[in-house]
Amino acid sequence: MNPVEPQRLKLRRIPIDTSRENVVFLHADCGAFPTLGFRALSKVQLSFDHKTAIGTLDVVRAPWLGVDEVGVCEYMFERLGVAEGAWVALSYPGMLESTNSIRRKLAGARLSRAEYDQIVRDIVDDRFSKVELTAFVCACSQNNLDRDEIVDLTEAMVAVGRTLSWDGGMVVDKHCIGGIPGNRTTPIVVSILAAHGLKVPKTSSRAITSPAGTADTMEVFCNVELSLPRMREIVDKHNGCLAWGGAIDLSPADDVIISVERPLNIDSEGQMIASILSKKKSAGSTHLVLDIPLGPTAKVRRPETAAGLRRMFEYVAGRVGMHVEVVISDGRQPVGRGVGPVLEARDVLAVLRNEANAPADLREHALALAGRGLEFAPGVRGGQGLELAREILRSGKALARFEAIVDAQGRRARPPEVGAYSFEIKAGRAGTVQRMDNFSIARLAKLAGAPVSKGAGVEVLRKLGEPVKTGEPVLRVHSATPAERRLAEQYAENEKEMVSCEP
Amino acid sequence: MNPVEPQRLKLRRIPIDTSRENVVFLHADCGAFPTLGFRALSKVQLSFDHKTAIGTLDVVRAPWLGVDEVGVCEYMFERLGVAEGAWVALSYPGMLESTNSIRRKLAGARLSRAEYDQIVRDIVDDRFSKVELTAFVCACSQNNLDRDEIVDLTEAMVAVGRTLSWDGGMVVDKHCIGGIPGNRTTPIVVSILAAHGLKVPKTSSRAITSPAGTADTMEVFCNVELSLPRMREIVDKHNGCLAWGGAIDLSPADDVIISVERPLNIDSEGQMIASILSKKKSAGSTHLVLDIPLGPTAKVRRPETAAGLRRMFEYVAGRVGMHVEVVISDGRQPVGRGVGPVLEARDVLAVLRNEANAPADLREHALALAGRGLEFAPGVRGGQGLELAREILRSGKALARFEAIVDAQGRRARPPEVGAYSFEIKAGRAGTVQRMDNFSIARLAKLAGAPVSKGAGVEVLRKLGEPVKTGEPVLRVHSATPAERRLAEQYAENEKEMVSCEP
Repeated sequence: MNPVEPQRLKLRRIPIDTSRENVVFLHADCGAFPTLGFRALSKVQLSFDHKTAIGTLDVVRAPWLGVDEVGVCEYMFERLGVAEGAWVALSYPGMLESTNSIRRKLAGARLSRAEYDQIVRDIVDDRFSKVELTAFVCACSQNNLDRDEIVDLTEAMVAVGRTLSWDGGMVVDKHCIGGIPGNRTTPIVVSILAAHGLKVPKTSSRAITSPAGTADTMEVFCNVELSLPRMREIVDKHNGCLAWGGAIDLSPADDVIISVERPLNIDSEGQMIASILSKKKSAGSTHLVLDIPLGPTAKVRRPETAAGLRRMFEYVAGRVGMHVEVVISDGRQPVGRGVGPVLEARDVLAVLRNEANAPADLREHALALAGRGLEFAPGVRGGQGLELAREILRSGKALARFEAIVDAQGRRARPPEVGAYSFEIKAGRAGTVQRMDNFSIARLAKLAGAPVSKGAGVEVLRKLGEPVKTGEPVLRVHSATPAERRLAEQYAENEKEMVSCEP
Repeated sequence: MNPVEPQRLKLRRIPIDTSRENVVFLHADCGAFPTLGFRALSKVQLSFDHKTAIGTLDVVRAPWLGVDEVGVCEYMFERLGVAEGAWVALSYPGMLESTNSIRRKLAGARLSRAEYDQIVRDIVDDRFSKVELTAFVCACSQNNLDRDEIVDLTEAMVAVGRTLSWDGGMVVDKHCIGGIPGNRTTPIVVSILAAHGLKVPKTSSRAITSPAGTADTMEVFCNVELSLPRMREIVDKHNGCLAWGGAIDLSPADDVIISVERPLNIDSEGQMIASILSKKKSAGSTHLVLDIPLGPTAKVRRPETAAGLRRMFEYVAGRVGMHVEVVISDGRQPVGRGVGPVLEARDVLAVLRNEANAPADLREHALALAGRGLEFAPGVRGGQGLELAREILRSGKALARFEAIVDAQGRRARPPEVGAYSFEIKAGRAGTVQRMDNFSIARLAKLAGAPVSKGAGVEVLRKLGEPVKTGEPVLRVHSATPAERRLAEQYAENEKEMVSCEP
């Protein structure tokens, strides 16, 4: 194969977690350096009998790595699937073809389907370092992808992951582009749709940048880590489930891309659409209700942006063979009262149980989404969905379906409780609540410990338009430890505009 | 200061070289994790008594790091300047303000001087990870900076480094934007200018992406790592020097930026201009001769690009108070015969010694540049420079000045020799040499071992327009080891278009 006598080294697992990056460790005195051609390498290629892998090189001068060993970080070791002690040949990986594509994209060129396939393949196979990955994300930002490129990127992302199929027929899904704390409609929507007989095999994420994802909140009630066979059993019996998607490995490229989007807080419309639709397509969904919240501190801040995004989702979904119904919703403030897994779970249950004090905005928002989803059903006429959804909720059928799903997934014997260490944020002046900052309320809940600490989070005590007196509490923050409470307090002291009241 | 009882840990140096990135290591069981607020941190801030630093977090599960320790990589440890065992408080660094600026720049906004100051300060203080750094480089690519932004970036880069001053008067410098193998005019130009009495305190880089930098080549003759006082002594006595710039730490932001530009191979006109002019300004130069090679495989490929670049250099230099003379030169092929430190040193010496077989293209190119530089001198009229330069070279004054500088810097007793393991690349067909690929010839020389191995490199045996018979050698490659020779041979087997002959 390689006519140079390659320096053969032994694979060694290095117990360092490098957050989704292949890092290769070589001892400074490793004999491979001269053979590799030159020393200032930033990447090396590892060749095993049947596979190769590329990683960023770190040079070690410590006794815990031998000069005849090649170390790989935890992430790389897990994905390699090769035993410690295996023989490795090292070589110089050369410049990736994809780097040229990224450079062309930065220069404004249109990339081909083949180029997106190669880029996504390189991402999934960890051939990109954070440098190439970031450059790709930047190149795609600012609506640099035209709509057919978004289709190509979506299909490329579907192609590298596994794809689920459900014995024919309609498979309904629901998604929100995010950004609004407490917007936990999914358990309610899924319960209503499944109660009506629609198939809703819902997988959700854990929180990435938010204080809770649907999977985090559902975990308050039950197990969410379902194997695929178990998920199929539950969906066969109850028409729906509320599982964590991470166990199923749909659209693996997406998780890697997110790891650099997060620190930059970059919005890339094309990547967002491709990310969402590739996951839904891979999950076997045929119909999707999509929630796009609009508001001054939401992800989408202008009506015309929301309208453009709606059209783009409709176009791309159509091209990849999915039907999407977009709901542009009120994103001016958190939805419901609770932000954080336990607090949100409480809101969800209050709505499902038709409790008198259940948060009306969460209920109405969930009903609007469920209504649009019900209209996918053959027997439901356009315009009837909302009332049908309301009836399914009112009758207790939605609650019964929710409880059945919770039991099937494995109900938690002792659900976690609200964090014991709390403090309140009070109105500085009397008046009416005029503005709420979704971002800083989410941040507050995260600093308080959510979602890792299930009971941590924020209770929103006053909503937009409600009157408030000076010194009355507007937010209540819960933490599991005094240290986290103090972190949240510090943040709250500096962040005065979370809830703005005006006379 | 920090009202939370911070988890205090002990600083520990971790002998891992992570190529210019601050990496912080914490043990998975470290007690600081709960206090930090949440676990999915990508960055942490280290606070010492009198300074803070930010690094990317790696989590370790190995006995070589204690749960009460915070490890930092070699790069970070060296720049911290804090002793091992010092007490460190950890905190969450929050989002950098600069991230907003980068996002605005990606969106096409014009950034202010204050924003460039902050970005450059964050770069120099290692607050950026590779992710932010790459995003900044991408945001500045594609001529996204207008000319006044380039001025601002240049001044920001000057402001964070040290600045040299030379007791008044004219200080002349020479620079090439690079890309042409063997283009080693600097030692000749400096010798001519210094011989005429101009002050030329030249600092040069080692190779970054090329097979040799001027510092690498000068190191064949003499020591290049001069302290600043020693450099001043030599310049006082001989008017010039040929030192390595890395020892002096001018424009430190540049080195960090380059570390991500390199793997992406991104051209950013604004960053290139700011990088070059900030280094020259920091070095105290008042006058600069700038070489912009033009050719199909040069960095600049079209005459109109070269002209635009010339105007941009003139504008920015003028704004920061420097006089620049741009020479657009022939960049269609390597200059001289040798590529690699020893081979280039041989060419330089042949020109300085007026040897009959000295490479004419290297001589004429160096004379053109020196001629423009001489015209900075008060007594030299426009148009006279070239002939004056030729006379200084012919008379042996340039050689004498070069030898004096080499002696002053510390002549090497035993200069390195040309690599013993060689092979030749032969013409596949008879005809005339029509094209040469600068990039692949440079790559070939690097794979052969240059510049780490001083004697490694490529001899260019035929130049453009010269006749060649089938099977005649066109390139000769030298390596110090059989392994490196084999690497270069492999590359040459796949790269057929390095030298193209046509009938």
